[in-house]
Amino acid sequence: MSRTNRQITYAKVPDGTPTLDCFALVENAVPDLQEGQVLVANRFLSVDPYIRMRMERRDSYAPVMTVGSTMVGRTAGEVIDSRCLDLPVGTHVVGRLGWQDYSVATPSELERIDTAKAPMNAYLGALGSTGITAWVGLTQFGRPQAGETVLVSAAAGAVGSVVGQLAKRLGCRAVGIAGGAEKCAFVRREYRFDACVDYKAPDFAEQLAAAAGEGYDVYFDNVGGPIFDAVLPLMRLFGRIPVCGLVSQYNATEPYGVKNLREVFNKRLTLRGFVLSDHKDLWPQAVAELQAAYGDGSLVHRDTITDGLENAPQAFIDMLAGASVGKQLVRISAGEGAR
Amino acid sequence: MSRTNRQITYAKVPDGTPTLDCFALVENAVPDLQEGQVLVANRFLSVDPYIRMRMERRDSYAPVMTVGSTMVGRTAGEVIDSRCLDLPVGTHVVGRLGWQDYSVATPSELERIDTAKAPMNAYLGALGSTGITAWVGLTQFGRPQAGETVLVSAAAGAVGSVVGQLAKRLGCRAVGIAGGAEKCAFVRREYRFDACVDYKAPDFAEQLAAAAGEGYDVYFDNVGGPIFDAVLPLMRLFGRIPVCGLVSQYNATEPYGVKNLREVFNKRLTLRGFVLSDHKDLWPQAVAELQAAYGDGSLVHRDTITDGLENAPQAFIDMLAGASVGKQLVRISAGEGAR
Repeated sequence: MSRTNRQITYAKVPDGTPTLDCFALVENAVPDLQEGQVLVANRFLSVDPYIRMRMERRDSYAPVMTVGSTMVGRTAGEVIDSRCLDLPVGTHVVGRLGWQDYSVATPSELERIDTAKAPMNAYLGALGSTGITAWVGLTQFGRPQAGETVLVSAAAGAVGSVVGQLAKRLGCRAVGIAGGAEKCAFVRREYRFDACVDYKAPDFAEQLAAAAGEGYDVYFDNVGGPIFDAVLPLMRLFGRIPVCGLVSQYNATEPYGVKNLREVFNKRLTLRGFVLSDHKDLWPQAVAELQAAYGDGSLVHRDTITDGLENAPQAFIDMLAGASVGKQLVRISAGEGAR
Repeated sequence: MSRTNRQITYAKVPDGTPTLDCFALVENAVPDLQEGQVLVANRFLSVDPYIRMRMERRDSYAPVMTVGSTMVGRTAGEVIDSRCLDLPVGTHVVGRLGWQDYSVATPSELERIDTAKAPMNAYLGALGSTGITAWVGLTQFGRPQAGETVLVSAAAGAVGSVVGQLAKRLGCRAVGIAGGAEKCAFVRREYRFDACVDYKAPDFAEQLAAAAGEGYDVYFDNVGGPIFDAVLPLMRLFGRIPVCGLVSQYNATEPYGVKNLREVFNKRLTLRGFVLSDHKDLWPQAVAELQAAYGDGSLVHRDTITDGLENAPQAFIDMLAGASVGKQLVRISAGEGAR
């Protein structure tokens, strides 16, 4: 049986914000499996800010993609054909399987997931690499103590929402920054942050200062740019700033100039950039703690799901523009239909 | 006997670069000693960048000075009168005794120095708080490994020159940044850096990249601003940036906007602001290692000495403008004359 595989490829380097013509939908036949391989029908695709960094002319923290190649991305799916005894048909897995209906993979590229404990989509979010990113950044570089105040930007997003919930679980006050009153309300209500400040509000700086109390001990930075600049004067002495991403700068053709860096000296702050793949040794501990938090209800998972692989480029563009609440996923219907 | 004490006071908050009218020379009688006090004739005054930060309207890392008070600063001098058994006449000391000919002090405000081992002026520089600053920042926050490349700005200055020499002693390559070909030659010749790059040169960026080799593992930042921005893309993965000061920004009325902060994320850098007074527990170890380095010839001390307390304001202004090589000191002649 020859199946048709739809794939979204990287068609053009974006100039600033990616546009739909930066992507192309192509169809190819699914190749026959070799010994040791499995065929995964992808059910959910995760579209994340880091992917934007790989759509550049030059390498940043990861190599750029080659124009014409399938877009990179993590998916969750089901093994529907197998020439590998360890991964029988019906196994649920996640992996970096790309923007496509079907992926041929070997066991080393896949992680099994237990969909009895949590739904498949959670394994791309709070219980997956975004949750682990939040855990690593917060516990290893934020190092919050009970009673401290933890601030996180992109608080309605996949990583930020987990950061605040983990901070609460550690006995901290959690303050978020998000775009728009609705998102801020969502962060307070669904993720139970103590406060969430709207960076689009005209009195953002005043609100951020009012929410700071004695100042922020930890700022988990997902956005960089002017928000980072606004936070610096509100940090407490010896504050820690894990830098997880700079989403406000990914589409910027001219980078923002940060003016308040003297606070790093005045307040003896520590800034630390980190990338999840450097910390594979911590993944088991992170997963165990995230699953415990999920199990006891202190960590909730929310996502925005767009239907159809063909809509993945628009979902990605919208996510970068801040339209998503929680984790932005794409449901891949071909995989559903083929089951 | 009533002595006249000349003092330089803080007369006016500077608007940008300090000018001579920000200072005033006043004369007061030296008060009689109380039991437990000593009278120190100051021989050398240290004028340092941090003093500029205390001439502000608002507190930064240290409280600002009150207009009308005696300028703060460290001096080295000799006890010339004593009502304290522990500190007899003739004892050589350093302390935060201010810009003045004579200071009344108690033992807790003074540290004894051994002028048989090194001249008095070295105890305000390489063997004093500036040397300790270099040692703390480099060893605690730079954490260089043998074979790594250590970059330091203001390399001809009091702290920078010690950083490079300590880095060499730890088996690292030392690269400096200084202003002007003459200063750079001085840094290479006197402090034996492997390279020193002139930030005033039109091809500064290219020279800095050429001197980087595989990249900079440690950047000891004394200046901030555009030089910091130029260094960021040349850092190696997991590089460390101790932030010791931002001298380029102290006189700036409009702070420079740093554009390359995305490198903190891309390269997983650690920035750490630090202030010497937070690390008093490390002083004995620092002093012991600095004295050992001085003793074995791997640490040399150089200074620029301006004669006369009345010339201290100009010396301070010149030092901020980068005119000094090595430690900028003022020789206080009244103290000499009274001996």
